Amino acid sequence: MLDRAAYIGGCDGVSTVLGAESLAERHSGTMPHSLALILGDTVKAAQSFDKRLPSEVPRIVLVDTFGDEKVESLRVAQALGKRLHGVRLDTPSSRRGDIRKIVEELRWELDLRGFQHVRIYVSGGLDEPQVAALEDILDGFGIGTSLSNAPVLDFAADIVEIEGKPIAKKGKFSGRKQALRCEKGHPVKPIPWVARSPGACPLCGAKVFGVLQTLLKNGKLLDALPSPQAIRKYVLSQLPAFAL
Amino acid sequence: MLDRAAYIGGCDGVSTVLGAESLAERHSGTMPHSLALILGDTVKAAQSFDKRLPSEVPRIVLVDTFGDEKVESLRVAQALGKRLHGVRLDTPSSRRGDIRKIVEELRWELDLRGFQHVRIYVSGGLDEPQVAALEDILDGFGIGTSLSNAPVLDFAADIVEIEGKPIAKKGKFSGRKQALRCEKGHPVKPIPWVARSPGACPLCGAKVFGVLQTLLKNGKLLDALPSPQAIRKYVLSQLPAFAL
Amino acid sequence: MLDRAAYIGGCDGVSTVLGAESLAERHSGTMPHSLALILGDTVKAAQSFDKRLPSEVPRIVLVDTFGDEKVESLRVAQALGKRLHGVRLDTPSSRRGDIRKIVEELRWELDLRGFQHVRIYVSGGLDEPQVAALEDILDGFGIGTSLSNAPVLDFAADIVEIEGKPIAKKGKFSGRKQALRCEKGHPVKPIPWVARSPGACPLCGAKVFGVLQTLLKNGKLLDALPSPQAIRKYVLSQLPAFAL
Amino acid sequence: MLDRAAYIGGCDGVSTVLGAESLAERHSGTMPHSLALILGDTVKAAQSFDKRLPSEVPRIVLVDTFGDEKVESLRVAQALGKRLHGVRLDTPSSRRGDIRKIVEELRWELDLRGFQHVRIYVSGGLDEPQVAALEDILDGFGIGTSLSNAPVLDFAADIVEIEGKPIAKKGKFSGRKQALRCEKGHPVKPIPWVARSPGACPLCGAKVFGVLQTLLKNGKLLDALPSPQAIRKYVLSQLPAFAL
Amino acid sequence: MLDRAAYIGGCDGVSTVLGAESLAERHSGTMPHSLALILGDTVKAAQSFDKRLPSEVPRIVLVDTFGDEKVESLRVAQALGKRLHGVRLDTPSSRRGDIRKIVEELRWELDLRGFQHVRIYVSGGLDEPQVAALEDILDGFGIGTSLSNAPVLDFAADIVEIEGKPIAKKGKFSGRKQALRCEKGHPVKPIPWVARSPGACPLCGAKVFGVLQTLLKNGKLLDALPSPQAIRKYVLSQLPAFAL
Amino acid sequence: MLDRAAYIGGCDGVSTVLGAESLAERHSGTMPHSLALILGDTVKAAQSFDKRLPSEVPRIVLVDTFGDEKVESLRVAQALGKRLHGVRLDTPSSRRGDIRKIVEELRWELDLRGFQHVRIYVSGGLDEPQVAALEDILDGFGIGTSLSNAPVLDFAADIVEIEGKPIAKKGKFSGRKQALRCEKGHPVKPIPWVARSPGACPLCGAKVFGVLQTLLKNGKLLDALPSPQAIRKYVLSQLPAFAL
Repeated sequence: MLDRAAYIGGCDGVSTVLGAESLAERHSGTMPHSLALILGDTVKAAQSFDKRLPSEVPRIVLVDTFGDEKVESLRVAQALGKRLHGVRLDTPSSRRGDIRKIVEELRWELDLRGFQHVRIYVSGGLDEPQVAALEDILDGFGIGTSLSNAPVLDFAADIVEIEGKPIAKKGKFSGRKQALRCEKGHPVKPIPWVARSPGACPLCGAKVFGVLQTLLKNGKLLDALPSPQAIRKYVLSQLPAFAL
Repeated sequence: MLDRAAYIGGCDGVSTVLGAESLAERHSGTMPHSLALILGDTVKAAQSFDKRLPSEVPRIVLVDTFGDEKVESLRVAQALGKRLHGVRLDTPSSRRGDIRKIVEELRWELDLRGFQHVRIYVSGGLDEPQVAALEDILDGFGIGTSLSNAPVLDFAADIVEIEGKPIAKKGKFSGRKQALRCEKGHPVKPIPWVARSPGACPLCGAKVFGVLQTLLKNGKLLDALPSPQAIRKYVLSQLPAFAL
Repeated sequence: MLDRAAYIGGCDGVSTVLGAESLAERHSGTMPHSLALILGDTVKAAQSFDKRLPSEVPRIVLVDTFGDEKVESLRVAQALGKRLHGVRLDTPSSRRGDIRKIVEELRWELDLRGFQHVRIYVSGGLDEPQVAALEDILDGFGIGTSLSNAPVLDFAADIVEIEGKPIAKKGKFSGRKQALRCEKGHPVKPIPWVARSPGACPLCGAKVFGVLQTLLKNGKLLDALPSPQAIRKYVLSQLPAFAL
Repeated sequence: MLDRAAYIGGCDGVSTVLGAESLAERHSGTMPHSLALILGDTVKAAQSFDKRLPSEVPRIVLVDTFGDEKVESLRVAQALGKRLHGVRLDTPSSRRGDIRKIVEELRWELDLRGFQHVRIYVSGGLDEPQVAALEDILDGFGIGTSLSNAPVLDFAADIVEIEGKPIAKKGKFSGRKQALRCEKGHPVKPIPWVARSPGACPLCGAKVFGVLQTLLKNGKLLDALPSPQAIRKYVLSQLPAFAL
Repeated sequence: MLDRAAYIGGCDGVSTVLGAESLAERHSGTMPHSLALILGDTVKAAQSFDKRLPSEVPRIVLVDTFGDEKVESLRVAQALGKRLHGVRLDTPSSRRGDIRKIVEELRWELDLRGFQHVRIYVSGGLDEPQVAALEDILDGFGIGTSLSNAPVLDFAADIVEIEGKPIAKKGKFSGRKQALRCEKGHPVKPIPWVARSPGACPLCGAKVFGVLQTLLKNGKLLDALPSPQAIRKYVLSQLPAFAL
Repeated sequence: MLDRAAYIGGCDGVSTVLGAESLAERHSGTMPHSLALILGDTVKAAQSFDKRLPSEVPRIVLVDTFGDEKVESLRVAQALGKRLHGVRLDTPSSRRGDIRKIVEELRWELDLRGFQHVRIYVSGGLDEPQVAALEDILDGFGIGTSLSNAPVLDFAADIVEIEGKPIAKKGKFSGRKQALRCEKGHPVKPIPWVARSPGACPLCGAKVFGVLQTLLKNGKLLDALPSPQAIRKYVLSQLPAFAL
């Protein structure tokens, strides 16, 4: 469920096998810490990963297991050369004084030695502001915790109409309503069901249409639901309407 | 799941039929808004509720549907008299300027007319600080939203020992550990598995014991899990250790 | 005195008989709470008010005495129909969680049932920011407390010139001065009485003139003072100069 | 009216002739700035004041007119010697960087030269926190502006009972009430008029009594009102009950 | 050292004899407080200063020793007339409630009496924000304390390259670097020494050049260092590049 | 000068040769980063340091040059065993997310492997609050920047007495004074020189004495100045009087 929500919300890929299957996508990821811990050295782990995995899997090596991210990255780059796709910094919080400075220093050192092709990924407890603050110097992010839950949306299933007559508890707007959106995706206030015309979008002037559809009838689904790929595409197409 | 978590966390009862069954408890609750909306009047709804429900169900009447909580409560109290167990204020936020003052006023008016036996309950978007601020003047609370989710606990399943040798990623304490608690419930820092004695609780001096138990062996549960009632009792017995 | 100050400061009307007489205006107002309290019901009070008052008095009915503003307003609107000029919400602070939402909900319910002609007024402890925050959805305001006093203007009657010679306590500018204002109403710093030309307004470049006039001579008023209506008109004409 | 309110609130004296007469007290005060401005020098003004005023008037000389408070005070002290009762600093705000330091410096300089008997008074825009912050080093204060107005007490004359039956608008406690205070002056919550016993003070346990008295009957005052001196004494006797 | 740093940083002059000599400038300043204290009066001190000092020294008189700045300034202006160049307010903090108001009042009083030529200087614990807040109404400032120290610049002399091979401690960028600035003075990030072209300024597009020069060779200075006057000129020419 | 100030202020030792000589103390310190950079490996650097330095120099090894502090410390501890006195963490700020957690983890790992004797030192931009927050888990600190400057003490050399007569600028207390301190080191307000008795300490009641001494007479030093060791001892003996 988490993988599906992350994917249709716009993430590029998911890492669990089951989640990827449910989306009809391939799972993706990087070398795990356990490989380095078992082999006892980051370079040995990188070489073993490089030797045994299918060639279409990009070689992304974790560089925060034993040593400093800078030194380990340079050792791995020298060992794998052009075959190294990228390094991933899962730096623990106790060592993460200024992750931006660490990435800038790493980029400098890689470039100075001719490893401009090595990409840098960061993971580990990143949230929205951190991603926004780092995206100009990074090639990708691995996000877990901050995608694994969401704030509760407080709602109630209130009665607003009885046998065609609008009636509601105080504090609720009575009567059946049309839920509206404009063609450019802006939210529009609902209007009574009986209102003749939904008018134009107060924000952009575009045409407004009702979004309520009958999906179930007598307990039967009337139509196939869209694929995760279609939902994700729709979400991404709507994002510009929510930008500041 | 939500009902179970709320119950073992200390709540007195739950309102869904399924949740109560899973706990082997009776579900409990009050008159719903829909009854008043369908019958068109709070007093009629209260009388209908009173007439048809088994006598062991406490008569708790919602008084925020149509009118003001004070006027509706007095009307209901005059209609049901001694049979009225309590009133419930689910006042919407737009009318909730100072819920404490509303309750104090309602208590005054009920008492002034001889309805000292009528209890007052409040529900609707209450959180911990609000419950703490109102508990001295109320007889109970109905809590929904703020119990229906919990903040994510960020954790990782790290390797800390390989074939008896402590080894861990930087940022993690290596080696198998004993998880400890003192007899009075205070949390105690973990120590290495091989350490001889867990010592005494640094907070209260009580005896410390390891809390790790083998629950599964070869995929089989070794023992029956405790009942929700037993877990709830244990939780409540531990609460004093967490008070300030 | 308060009515006069409120009126010349721009208010549309005043409610006390004495205050209105001193201004040569008609007092105005709405149904009082006492009418509903004595008759025991808001609709009865509205009907009695409607039956007995001269037809030129607008029917504005208080809807916060016993019930919720929404329910009471709909009952009154159904009883008086087209003769209902408006409803007034004097909602007490303990029930005023979000007065804007209450008004929006009330507007929705009135419109839904064809009562678009019913105006909505709010009173009760409103101050400047609240009026500014509500004026787009309301038809008028009843203001009391926040007009019934004003912050003290700290001033002293200091000697600044003795027999034509400027002399003043330290901390005061010595010498007789010209008090100035520009033709568009902007305040202009005073200059010495003997200064030849007051120059142009530093804010807008308009002509500047001295505002000091001799009103009393040998204890006699030289001219009739302007009427409250004239002062109010002058105040309103100056307001644009103080807008941000 | 202002003088009376200040006096019964605990002030030691008032400075206007009319205010003092209405209290059957003597007005009191110090040399004005105008005397120094007309005579052109603080010492000349002090000597003139000393020469012409009745001997029972304390010689308190304003020392902020022309020069620095320190230098002027020393000049006046040398001129009047033992006859100088005190100096008053009405230092304007533009020169009042740290009035406490000015007073400490002045006290030092007066004491160093043998003028320990000269008292120091401060006036000019002082409010409660400033008085509290200075009272340990000063002999008295002259207060004007901060006593010349008071915040509005928001109240309404609501109907709470009709022909013996409690009834009130929502938001108001219905029924006639006893207003209570404990014998030590603590405020106590009102109780219904018909309640049998007011009980003991919840703060200190002292006896509680009703404070409502019939003062007017058929338009006639039943008893003489207390003198300002008696009211002031009562106020001062109650102050300890309001201390933190 | 302090005088030199202040001068090359843009100050107009310095007041110590030694500091001025080291800069090959004339020291400058005003009458000291000791002159007024010894002669016992500000006007006597001003007249003595005027009588004995070479005519090219501007007559700037301290007016805060004994009396108020306003009264003393007028006395001095009347005594010295056209020969008075300016007055200096070294008002102590305990008398400095609003130095801007004191200066405005003083300017008013001087102008009112025909002393438009008298300049006003302020000294005494001024810092950058105070200078910025007063510069529109003053003719100059005397700055001491806030120029007599500077925040520590934290730096370390790290090894970044050994025998032509870049190597550095983690946290430091390795390799010899070019320090760059653009022709308009903007700071530009350093680049590796071996990089071919420094490119253009990212802020303004101007040409970028390396600023490192060989000053010492075999322990010998290769060129004469610039004069303080040249450094100061260079500093002032760069200031616009740092403005917001 | 900096070393002397740090030493007499209570530091245990200084690291520059010249500073130590001026104090007649031995300089002390740890292995530098350059040693590890030149030899290319922390363990090699530690072994070389151990092999060549006199045995009385404690072996304190820098562990932040190339790798993570935890991994490097364990490698060094295994290489030097009992001869390792301690490790020093000069962790750069970009890697210093939570230095307390790093030290706790390091202590855990060292203890787990039997290296309880290895001390942990931290250096690098530490200030007073950081030292206070870490002192319970550390064996020592290396402090540089925050000891290399001090806030300016604003003072002026004012004339306060001329030929035995107290006279001072406004804002200054006139007259020669006794500077006082109580026997327990508390600061006591100065009193006039001619005052008979300094009285007792207002804070603790101890005896008060004057601290002014004649050190120079006719340009000659009357007595030898105390040694840095004596001053440091005096400072440390006074510290308790300044504790909260």
